[in-house]
Amino acid sequence: MERDKYENNEVAGVVTGLAWTSVGGDILFIESILSKGKGQLTMTGNLGKVMKESATIALEFIKSNAEKLGLSPDIFEKYNVHIHVPEGATPKDGPSAGITMLTSLVSLFTQRKVKKSLAMTGEITLRGKVLPVGGIKEKILAAKRARIKEIMLCEDNRRDIEEIKPEYLKGLTFHYVKDMDEVLDVALTNQKVKNAKKL
Amino acid sequence: MERDKYENNEVAGVVTGLAWTSVGGDILFIESILSKGKGQLTMTGNLGKVMKESATIALEFIKSNAEKLGLSPDIFEKYNVHIHVPEGATPKDGPSAGITMLTSLVSLFTQRKVKKSLAMTGEITLRGKVLPVGGIKEKILAAKRARIKEIMLCEDNRRDIEEIKPEYLKGLTFHYVKDMDEVLDVALTNQKVKNAKKL
Amino acid sequence: MERDKYENNEVAGVVTGLAWTSVGGDILFIESILSKGKGQLTMTGNLGKVMKESATIALEFIKSNAEKLGLSPDIFEKYNVHIHVPEGATPKDGPSAGITMLTSLVSLFTQRKVKKSLAMTGEITLRGKVLPVGGIKEKILAAKRARIKEIMLCEDNRRDIEEIKPEYLKGLTFHYVKDMDEVLDVALTNQKVKNAKKL
Amino acid sequence: MERDKYENNEVAGVVTGLAWTSVGGDILFIESILSKGKGQLTMTGNLGKVMKESATIALEFIKSNAEKLGLSPDIFEKYNVHIHVPEGATPKDGPSAGITMLTSLVSLFTQRKVKKSLAMTGEITLRGKVLPVGGIKEKILAAKRARIKEIMLCEDNRRDIEEIKPEYLKGLTFHYVKDMDEVLDVALTNQKVKNAKKL
Amino acid sequence: MERDKYENNEVAGVVTGLAWTSVGGDILFIESILSKGKGQLTMTGNLGKVMKESATIALEFIKSNAEKLGLSPDIFEKYNVHIHVPEGATPKDGPSAGITMLTSLVSLFTQRKVKKSLAMTGEITLRGKVLPVGGIKEKILAAKRARIKEIMLCEDNRRDIEEIKPEYLKGLTFHYVKDMDEVLDVALTNQKVKNAKKL
Amino acid sequence: MERDKYENNEVAGVVTGLAWTSVGGDILFIESILSKGKGQLTMTGNLGKVMKESATIALEFIKSNAEKLGLSPDIFEKYNVHIHVPEGATPKDGPSAGITMLTSLVSLFTQRKVKKSLAMTGEITLRGKVLPVGGIKEKILAAKRARIKEIMLCEDNRRDIEEIKPEYLKGLTFHYVKDMDEVLDVALTNQKVKNAKKL
Ligand SMILES: [Ca+2]
Ligand SMILES: [Ca+2]
Ligand SMILES: [Ca+2]
Ligand SMILES: [Ca+2]
Ligand SMILES: [Ca+2]
Ligand SMILES: [Ca+2]
Ligand SMILES: [Ca+2]
Ligand SMILES: [Ca+2]
Ligand SMILES: [Ca+2]
Ligand SMILES: [Ca+2]
Ligand SMILES: [Ca+2]
Ligand SMILES: [Ca+2]
Repeated sequence: MERDKYENNEVAGVVTGLAWTSVGGDILFIESILSKGKGQLTMTGNLGKVMKESATIALEFIKSNAEKLGLSPDIFEKYNVHIHVPEGATPKDGPSAGITMLTSLVSLFTQRKVKKSLAMTGEITLRGKVLPVGGIKEKILAAKRARIKEIMLCEDNRRDIEEIKPEYLKGLTFHYVKDMDEVLDVALTNQKVKNAKKL
Repeated sequence: MERDKYENNEVAGVVTGLAWTSVGGDILFIESILSKGKGQLTMTGNLGKVMKESATIALEFIKSNAEKLGLSPDIFEKYNVHIHVPEGATPKDGPSAGITMLTSLVSLFTQRKVKKSLAMTGEITLRGKVLPVGGIKEKILAAKRARIKEIMLCEDNRRDIEEIKPEYLKGLTFHYVKDMDEVLDVALTNQKVKNAKKL
Repeated sequence: MERDKYENNEVAGVVTGLAWTSVGGDILFIESILSKGKGQLTMTGNLGKVMKESATIALEFIKSNAEKLGLSPDIFEKYNVHIHVPEGATPKDGPSAGITMLTSLVSLFTQRKVKKSLAMTGEITLRGKVLPVGGIKEKILAAKRARIKEIMLCEDNRRDIEEIKPEYLKGLTFHYVKDMDEVLDVALTNQKVKNAKKL
Repeated sequence: MERDKYENNEVAGVVTGLAWTSVGGDILFIESILSKGKGQLTMTGNLGKVMKESATIALEFIKSNAEKLGLSPDIFEKYNVHIHVPEGATPKDGPSAGITMLTSLVSLFTQRKVKKSLAMTGEITLRGKVLPVGGIKEKILAAKRARIKEIMLCEDNRRDIEEIKPEYLKGLTFHYVKDMDEVLDVALTNQKVKNAKKL
Repeated sequence: MERDKYENNEVAGVVTGLAWTSVGGDILFIESILSKGKGQLTMTGNLGKVMKESATIALEFIKSNAEKLGLSPDIFEKYNVHIHVPEGATPKDGPSAGITMLTSLVSLFTQRKVKKSLAMTGEITLRGKVLPVGGIKEKILAAKRARIKEIMLCEDNRRDIEEIKPEYLKGLTFHYVKDMDEVLDVALTNQKVKNAKKL
Repeated sequence: MERDKYENNEVAGVVTGLAWTSVGGDILFIESILSKGKGQLTMTGNLGKVMKESATIALEFIKSNAEKLGLSPDIFEKYNVHIHVPEGATPKDGPSAGITMLTSLVSLFTQRKVKKSLAMTGEITLRGKVLPVGGIKEKILAAKRARIKEIMLCEDNRRDIEEIKPEYLKGLTFHYVKDMDEVLDVALTNQKVKNAKKL
């Protein structure tokens, strides 16, 4: 069953991540939506504790840096946020979807388009750093199979890329980042999504 | 004990799904009702975590797309929703009842009739995509035993149908869908159910 | 220790059910009471998850059909409901007490007497259907030992009764039902209980 | 270490029960107190699920029969109730402390004295019945060791007493009861405790 | 690593207890503090269920006897209480810290100094009794090592002291108590702590 | 993968701790941020129960000593606090991050800079004491590898340092502390962080 392929991201909050499982690398999507509410955060997709923590960290980072991100602080009390990672039959865990979740939520709150053909993997910290993650080689192969063109990684993962045979990297552009400002610079365009919600 | 047979769906919120268990395919019903309340979601029927997540995803998708579906946004705060999957003695899990739950809830909130003699199976995502699921052959056989006439599947499950001997498919019409708009187009009629509630 | 015998039901909310355990059939009582409150549902009696779900289904069905049952919708917000199944030392589970719980709660909310010498077993669904259950033969023998006169079952359990030797069925009247309207028609008299509460 | 001995009950809410453990019979005390609050029920003493259910049943029975017991219904919203069973190192479970808990709570709410030198054991049901319990012989021996003079049991436990050698029963008076009204008639005097609280 | 030594108790709410672990007796400290709040009770220190129950019992006893203890009843709604037992790496459980917790909380609420060089061990009950506990010999040796001068025990533990060789008891004064009034008489001085909070 | 290195602490709430794991010593960072809210405490980083308790103790200590620390008491009701310990894939537990968490939170609430090149390890108690912890040798080696210059420990850990060969200690300055006042004196500068928030 072929479920994993990259699609153009016309919708706010949908971002492509890279996962590393017992059967190799894989791409995954982080999806998030807003609905009117009182600031509740819901997470689905058969997620383990650490992956849920990544979503909490991303949301708290955004709340704490609302002003800098151009967000009205009361936005967080007027909407519920739901984050989902499709393919519910597969348990998922670990911190490596951190930058993907951050990108998803900022896209959602700003209604800005995510960059085309971009996939990413990296842990986030509360102070805004990006940390390296494992399984880079397998993740790169999965990205290529899904026709991804650009990949964002932690600067500290550069060495993992340098150890991969160049022929496997053909056609891929890499973005190495150190903190969350850079993540958002790379991942988000300045275009609003079509039918952008007014929040 | 013969418990599984299709019945005409005169009632809002009752939809026929297809399940795949250790003893083969089976049909199941998703039932949902509204009662006056404050927006609480209750799920019963011996459901596992992933199946409960499907109900959450369906409800959040509906809330986030309320306007497009012609629903007043305050409807969600004035009613409690209860989703049940009969045969409580059988534990049930997995994401494949997603489109069935979505159909059930939209039928409930709009009081529109579900299409006659239709069964369905497919995972849903928060952004509105339908994903393929497993056990298609066994599910088709179960649908035939229950005298189902039409079946809705994910477009990516078309190949699974093409591998089944044509004689097993006689008398069945298939609907392949890619997103939740198509699910609702196929599954819901424009008729209100008898004694439709005014919400 | 002989704990199980039928008693006349002078009290609202007390209904006789039939259970099937590892040591054979048994009768059990469902008891329910109201106290002033805010609509909380409490369940005791060493009940498993599925049996608790039956109580939730019964209560939600009643709430959703309040008008049809002649109940004021605000009754559910002014009282707490407590459902108990005696003999706390025995763990109990399964969906087969569904119609018994439904009868108990409707008797409680309407203060109508339950039919004399009647025992019952059957699963309920949210849309109001009654489903067949197992262990019929053992349950019938237990009912006779407890001097029960009438038994209510799902229509789909008729075949189980037809397989029992007629001599075991002497003195018993059977009521086969398909939906919850019929359950209430059979189980509840039009008489109020003595000292009926005004709700 | 001798911890178990009967003391005169000068204090509201302290009642002597009989327990049956792996090392024989034992007496235990049920203690309950009120503090200003909003109707919360707290249970301590290393109690298992079924024993906690007994406390819930007793309290709900009292709430539902407040008028008959001469209690103002708003008393339950103005106080928190705490029930404790001393000797926290010993896990305790089972339904047999039901009538002891009922007596304790009614003594507490009415500030009436419990009968002197009385111990009791019996399950309670929500409709007010008393059910028989096990371990009667061992419990009787423990009561004698603690110099208990009167014992209250379920009517259905009379046969268990009749099987005990009369010499073991010397000096003991038995009260057999069928329902909770009788429990309270036997267990509670009409005297208020010293320094009775005005509730 | 020597962590256990007695210090003068200049601070409200700090009381020395005696514990009995698999590696012998030990002293421990119960610490409690107030912060502005709504009456929440927090417990830390790697405590098991029964030890947490002791804290609940102590607090509820104080609430129920507020007047007698000279405490304004609304004090409990205006402050949060936090009880901690240091050395978080060591799991702790059992009821024997009961009188220590009671003393700590009364010292906290009254801002009275605890008696110098005093350690204690004993279970508490909700009606105000003190119950004997185990491991007395090991606890006494630990107290001596920590230069404790006075020890408070349940009257029923007197026999345990009488079985210890007198040479081990040199320099120790014992206080045997039966109820919580006596505990507080022995443990609390009439002096306020330095910089006593006005509650 | 080299993830552990000391960075200048320009940001409020980021403090360097020392951990001892099955594979040796390590440095870790405690990060904390504020967002507008109602006083909720969130903890992430794959933390065990005892480590979470340290955060609770630190926060309650700060609340209880707000005045002394120059903090307005209503600050705690107007902000949510989130504490994170990076590297979510690694489970973390134990009390030894106590002084690190305390320092992080006081830096956060006062917006004061943490001392440069300082790492620390030590348990905290509710009354403000610092307790010794284990694994000192391994922690020192890890601190050197990360180019830490100064280390804060409990006074009772001085003996552990004295047992380490002097050559391993070259270039390190040690601060031994007994209570939390001293911790804050050593760890916090009087400078505000850049872009300090006005709370
Ligand atoms: Ca996949
Ligand atoms: Ca990722
Ligand atoms: Ca079935
Ligand atoms: Ca399905
Ligand atoms: Ca029975
Ligand atoms: Ca039944
Ligand atoms: Ca005992
Ligand atoms: Ca008892
Ligand atoms: Ca110790
Ligand atoms: Ca102690
Ligand atoms: Ca590390
Ligand atoms: Ca540390």
